[in-house]
Amino acid sequence: MEENKEFEEKKPQDTEESGTENNIETQEYEIPEKADYEAEIIDIIRGNEPAYVKKEKLNDYHENDIASVLEDLDVNERRRLYALLGLDRVSEIFAYLDDPEEFIEELDNETAADILEAMEPDDAVDILDELEEEKSEELLQLMDKEAQKDIDLIQSYDEDEIGSKMTTNYVSLSLDLTIKQAMKRLVEQAADNDNISTLYVKKEDGTFYGAIDLKDLIVAREYVELESLVITSYPFVYDHETVDDCIEELKDYSEDSIPVLDKDNHILGVITSQDLVEVVDEEMGEDYAKLAGLAAEEELEEPLSQSLKKRVPWLIILLMLGMIVSTVISMFEKVIVGLPIIVTFQSVILGMSGNVGTQSLAVTIRVLMDEELEFKQMLGFVFKEMRVGFFNGLIVGSISFIFTGVFIWLVRGQQFMDAFAISGCIGVALALAMLISSFVGAIIPIILDKIGFDPAVASGPLISTVNDLVAAVTYYGLAWVFLINILHL
Amino acid sequence: MEENKEFEEKKPQDTEESGTENNIETQEYEIPEKADYEAEIIDIIRGNEPAYVKKEKLNDYHENDIASVLEDLDVNERRRLYALLGLDRVSEIFAYLDDPEEFIEELDNETAADILEAMEPDDAVDILDELEEEKSEELLQLMDKEAQKDIDLIQSYDEDEIGSKMTTNYVSLSLDLTIKQAMKRLVEQAADNDNISTLYVKKEDGTFYGAIDLKDLIVAREYVELESLVITSYPFVYDHETVDDCIEELKDYSEDSIPVLDKDNHILGVITSQDLVEVVDEEMGEDYAKLAGLAAEEELEEPLSQSLKKRVPWLIILLMLGMIVSTVISMFEKVIVGLPIIVTFQSVILGMSGNVGTQSLAVTIRVLMDEELEFKQMLGFVFKEMRVGFFNGLIVGSISFIFTGVFIWLVRGQQFMDAFAISGCIGVALALAMLISSFVGAIIPIILDKIGFDPAVASGPLISTVNDLVAAVTYYGLAWVFLINILHL
Repeated sequence: MEENKEFEEKKPQDTEESGTENNIETQEYEIPEKADYEAEIIDIIRGNEPAYVKKEKLNDYHENDIASVLEDLDVNERRRLYALLGLDRVSEIFAYLDDPEEFIEELDNETAADILEAMEPDDAVDILDELEEEKSEELLQLMDKEAQKDIDLIQSYDEDEIGSKMTTNYVSLSLDLTIKQAMKRLVEQAADNDNISTLYVKKEDGTFYGAIDLKDLIVAREYVELESLVITSYPFVYDHETVDDCIEELKDYSEDSIPVLDKDNHILGVITSQDLVEVVDEEMGEDYAKLAGLAAEEELEEPLSQSLKKRVPWLIILLMLGMIVSTVISMFEKVIVGLPIIVTFQSVILGMSGNVGTQSLAVTIRVLMDEELEFKQMLGFVFKEMRVGFFNGLIVGSISFIFTGVFIWLVRGQQFMDAFAISGCIGVALALAMLISSFVGAIIPIILDKIGFDPAVASGPLISTVNDLVAAVTYYGLAWVFLINILHL
Repeated sequence: MEENKEFEEKKPQDTEESGTENNIETQEYEIPEKADYEAEIIDIIRGNEPAYVKKEKLNDYHENDIASVLEDLDVNERRRLYALLGLDRVSEIFAYLDDPEEFIEELDNETAADILEAMEPDDAVDILDELEEEKSEELLQLMDKEAQKDIDLIQSYDEDEIGSKMTTNYVSLSLDLTIKQAMKRLVEQAADNDNISTLYVKKEDGTFYGAIDLKDLIVAREYVELESLVITSYPFVYDHETVDDCIEELKDYSEDSIPVLDKDNHILGVITSQDLVEVVDEEMGEDYAKLAGLAAEEELEEPLSQSLKKRVPWLIILLMLGMIVSTVISMFEKVIVGLPIIVTFQSVILGMSGNVGTQSLAVTIRVLMDEELEFKQMLGFVFKEMRVGFFNGLIVGSISFIFTGVFIWLVRGQQFMDAFAISGCIGVALALAMLISSFVGAIIPIILDKIGFDPAVASGPLISTVNDLVAAVTYYGLAWVFLINILHL
């Protein structure tokens, strides 16, 4: 909660819209009740009005809202609804379904294929991928050649290639058109196309030439040449580029759509900003899952076996690493037996070094994702992480030196000097372990990235366990040398 | 790396575009070199051609690419470039700058204010927020009333309210227009507006009536009524809703833009899908940072003091919690002294329970963000997490029972029965701790969410430390009861 405070920047207000309420907490600020669109839609569907009135009324609702009510209807109501709304609207609604399989399954194959055919190909692929392989193949065979070709193309890409995220729905114009002809071509294509904000221009040989902003076309005077509206150095991506590699670029351009080309510069499709929202969401979700030591992101409805499959691999690796840590600790049996009090603080040292490492790791991964760093910047970054680690260690080490010193002296009844020798050892070990952990948390993802691995595989739990090792050696080593061998405690 | 494999779904290809290369690894697949737009732009700027030719050539490049080269130019080159390109283009370029402050600082206030005035208000706010308070105030005073009003409005919202993310740039139409008049109004407004894909219709009293898809207007026949194109139950959000509350809804609709209304249903602005990309990115970045135990997301260029401020608070809380764990462990001094071998495996038990807890936490936070769960679903979810924890514990516990048993028997030279009694204790403690940790990792964020806190504040390190406590009690408790009191080892 408190975290947000530093971002808040309250300004004196002089706009009428949100006048005096400024000092009232957001939560208490009265947000009006919204109409319950879903309830309204169900009322219309179940009402007694003639079909054409129902259809008219339902036209005023967003496909996403209609999609949300499908699961509240029974099979017959759904069938009647589809008939009422017509194929195009139903296909748009299906694109919004969270779990389209069940609704596809209850249709005959012909109808299902028609619906999928009328959808944007990338949405159709999303649904087909959810179906059984066999069913998916059957439906695909029933679609027209055009739709099949688009779907095959999108399915031909690996999940991590940007081509798999594109839609093949875009408006293209040829360069020799006049403004008026271009507008006419646009109107013709607009009916079948959702993405008309940016229009793409091809050369005579069919290769990508550039893009026209729809706005520029609309406001253009009739006598100017179409060519003058074209941005020829418009950004694009190649179909086989990985999502990881081009996502930052796509975000930076913040365009309505960016074309996807094959290696011969023919335009295959576009990535729309709606696609980009999904891609960003997925990519970050994956990184987020990996940071937490999951093999991949999990869904709510996932079966137990899937969940186990995503979690067990890391756990077994971590168990093995943990065993190494425990073997190292067992080498310090003299310290354990001679100074059991040292053992009781082991969890603090190991825990804190893990925490610091996880922080460094998270910062490093985000920096690696967002920026292309040169070697010098990289060094500077690692150095900065170490400075952060040093000062964190200094602060936390000092606090724990005083705190545990007093605790051991007064509560555990050790002599004053001995108590502070022990707490000194704890404080120094803590500070050292935190310094080294910051370094480890920063350098491991950087090295992974350099040798071509996804830095996000260096999960937090992995870094924590590696740092356990570092911290255990530092702590018990110090205790053994300083407390046992030098001070003979 | 391996994680992606399960998502890959290679299909036989029959499209000509990506024919035979399918089996070649993505990394090896030849992705053509892209033209270096930035180098080209610099060459043009530094070239000897007359100004009008330069301007003509630069018109073909995207503003984002021109923005990227600004830092490679010197002050005079930048000044000449601004003069060449004109105010509108320069303001678009400035919207793409990562660190606009320095470029704003080198301009006189008049010019800077003109540039900001010509930008979309939300982009201008982003820049003003980066400047010193005083400078920002000066520039604001120099802008025209219209721009000031828009900027004040956007700045009046807290960072976590959706109003702070909107742009006030949108096209509005009144309901009484004919199709032809509406097109004319659109052309008039399009010149100053970037967001024309969805047009907003107001009632006579100025309240929000609905939305028209630009596509529908373009393909509409002239004689139909404008009203028939309007989707009246179009989704919208209220200005003071929190980003957290409405982001899932905004994503679900996957629209080009969604209007932001005040509580009297007047439209104040729109959230475009480009805004949404940014918002999703920010929100997930914040959650990601919190999961790793950072108070907020960090930037590469951030000063040391800022980084410390974001990391130290959690570390101190975790230190205190760690001290509690160590106090609990110290209560088992008899186990420590009597069975030092138990101590050497402490790090494994605590570490693994922390890891399991972090996994559960990450899954739970994502589920809470993505779905509105009812109480029953919530229970089901927690129960599922516990089942995952149980089976994870069973698998990992069994492995470690056998593995450590053999290890203690053969390497540490304990008697066979004793060795497996100890390893049994370790295995059972591990399984139990993992079960409980899954529960803790799932229930804590759910409770936080229920009582109105952001569940993401339950960071991984926090959950790990809480689970350390659980694991320590379980492990040492079991060892004390079973090994010391029953078996008298």
